[in-house]
Amino acid sequence: MNVNGQHYQSIWFDESDGSVNIIDQTCLPHRFEIASLKNLQDACHAIEAMQVRGAPLIGVTAAYGMYLALREDPNQLAVALDRLAATRPTAVNLQWALSRVNAALRNTVVAERAAAALQQARAIEEEDSAICEAIGENGAVLLQEIWNAKADLSNPLNVLTHCNAGALATVDWGTALAVIYKTAAAGVPIHVWVDETRPRNQGASLTCWELAQQGIEHTLIVDNAGGHLMQQGLVDCCVVGSDRTTVSGDVCNKIGTYLKALAAHDNNIPFYVALPVSSIDFTLSDGIAEIPIEERDAREVSHLEGIDEYGDVQQVRLCPEEVAISNYGFDVTPARLVSKIITEKGVFAAEQSLLQKLRA
Amino acid sequence: MNVNGQHYQSIWFDESDGSVNIIDQTCLPHRFEIASLKNLQDACHAIEAMQVRGAPLIGVTAAYGMYLALREDPNQLAVALDRLAATRPTAVNLQWALSRVNAALRNTVVAERAAAALQQARAIEEEDSAICEAIGENGAVLLQEIWNAKADLSNPLNVLTHCNAGALATVDWGTALAVIYKTAAAGVPIHVWVDETRPRNQGASLTCWELAQQGIEHTLIVDNAGGHLMQQGLVDCCVVGSDRTTVSGDVCNKIGTYLKALAAHDNNIPFYVALPVSSIDFTLSDGIAEIPIEERDAREVSHLEGIDEYGDVQQVRLCPEEVAISNYGFDVTPARLVSKIITEKGVFAAEQSLLQKLRA
Repeated sequence: MNVNGQHYQSIWFDESDGSVNIIDQTCLPHRFEIASLKNLQDACHAIEAMQVRGAPLIGVTAAYGMYLALREDPNQLAVALDRLAATRPTAVNLQWALSRVNAALRNTVVAERAAAALQQARAIEEEDSAICEAIGENGAVLLQEIWNAKADLSNPLNVLTHCNAGALATVDWGTALAVIYKTAAAGVPIHVWVDETRPRNQGASLTCWELAQQGIEHTLIVDNAGGHLMQQGLVDCCVVGSDRTTVSGDVCNKIGTYLKALAAHDNNIPFYVALPVSSIDFTLSDGIAEIPIEERDAREVSHLEGIDEYGDVQQVRLCPEEVAISNYGFDVTPARLVSKIITEKGVFAAEQSLLQKLRA
Repeated sequence: MNVNGQHYQSIWFDESDGSVNIIDQTCLPHRFEIASLKNLQDACHAIEAMQVRGAPLIGVTAAYGMYLALREDPNQLAVALDRLAATRPTAVNLQWALSRVNAALRNTVVAERAAAALQQARAIEEEDSAICEAIGENGAVLLQEIWNAKADLSNPLNVLTHCNAGALATVDWGTALAVIYKTAAAGVPIHVWVDETRPRNQGASLTCWELAQQGIEHTLIVDNAGGHLMQQGLVDCCVVGSDRTTVSGDVCNKIGTYLKALAAHDNNIPFYVALPVSSIDFTLSDGIAEIPIEERDAREVSHLEGIDEYGDVQQVRLCPEEVAISNYGFDVTPARLVSKIITEKGVFAAEQSLLQKLRA
């Protein structure tokens, strides 16, 4: 992705000092800061504190976390796997990346473990970027079709997205936003409605920042607004990401995605989900019954971080002090509300008979 | 309503000094403050700055605004009507209250105008409180039926509400929350899921505060969470208010209401709208096409007010500085998603053949 005119990834390995670097997303949009991960603890903290977030990026970070752990102590393999696996419960890529690193270490002597883990992490990193670019290209075909079918070309193609499924959620390109970048690159005038995405406001803070850096026109809205915009004909399609997808096509994504899918369905607007095949959990077929939904800290709801009139980052409390709070991080959009699933392997209807063929 | 153990209304006339007093809702939940309205300008400011909000309370405040205006200058009748009518575009009660005061003044000599307006305002105030209490009683019958039909009584009756349709939105009792208060008074254990209601957070700030003061169990959630809770069987019914209702049963309420109605419909959960007959606009039958939706200041989205670690009220900015923002205040829930309309005159299906009989 482009940051102040320079190319960046969300995570990268620095050969000069053997460090793993990330864009610290907790500082955005107010400050652009790079954090350096030195050990297992740093990697776990980066995932838990959401310095990195987004299912694909969590996977890559966990793989690098294995490298950092084994570099510290090649005998802490089992401990590191357990510790990293526990950082976030919902994203399937996390488990997928750890399994892959673990499998690669099976026939590796202890002294070579760190090097082998690094090789896997770098491979996952490179593949992720290529996969996201392919997702973007496959999805752009759909959006160009909508654009070509549009009667009134005086307005841009209006796409609604939720949360941040962008370059910041992956190594580069993103999933949902890759589709937008590739559509724009194909010459389609495009405008993005950005859901702010409470409670953590990844839309307001990350997606707005990322789209501005890439020069894509966008408008910030509250999460409550999308239904009204769809009713009024102001949305041509929705594109979101997925943290975990069942083989039947149920999509587990940031809380609130389900509500937007309902509104899209009610207004005959295509609802696309862009995801790497690695986020499909081939063991699950009923997302609502089977996917555990992470409950997060009440403070994410009661307190909000922003920049005050003096330019300092401050947290303020919105609600009465003693109030009970519930904070589920994700919801499940049933396959019947998903128009198409966009992957690096092509575009599919959200149907088990099609998706199960993607199993490696 | 109960505030720190004492009975208050959201607005009241003080005979001792002829002032109109309001609970200044912009200070809640962090401070409980009373504001005194002395003239037309104060009344307009109270409505525009949302020191008072909620369709019924706006109507009463506008009626008192006419009194304050005519007390200043009995010849500014037309000016005051225009000025007050322009304060908020969506709420039909505002126009209704102004028309009623104006009608009462038709055969009043200039010198008596202020007194006649005061009489109307006090009458509207009294009626509003009685109407809301009747809405609560009528709605409580529905909620008791749900409770009586519930198989598992180990959990309370779970009701989801959006925004604040409480005593703070009316003179007393509220509309949606009146239903909850009367259900609780009938002995049903009740728990309320409170949508925070971005962008102005009336749920987090006002409804949580009001429910706590009345001793009703409640949990604050982000606006994105309701769909997930409904999928998981954690919501028995939804009760919301309405700022304007078409005679066909379309409901214009706080932005985001439509999304919750879709989720309720998708999960076979009753979606009730509690409203005074005065909020029904008998001239409209297509809410989506005909109700003008107020667009409000972008700063409501970009900035958020809360209390900092030192106990001071602060505003912080959530998003990048230069971002474009769209801020629609309301949306329209079509009648097909409304299970019942609860009024002071009884409970009705959202159907024109029934609602048009309510025309006075």
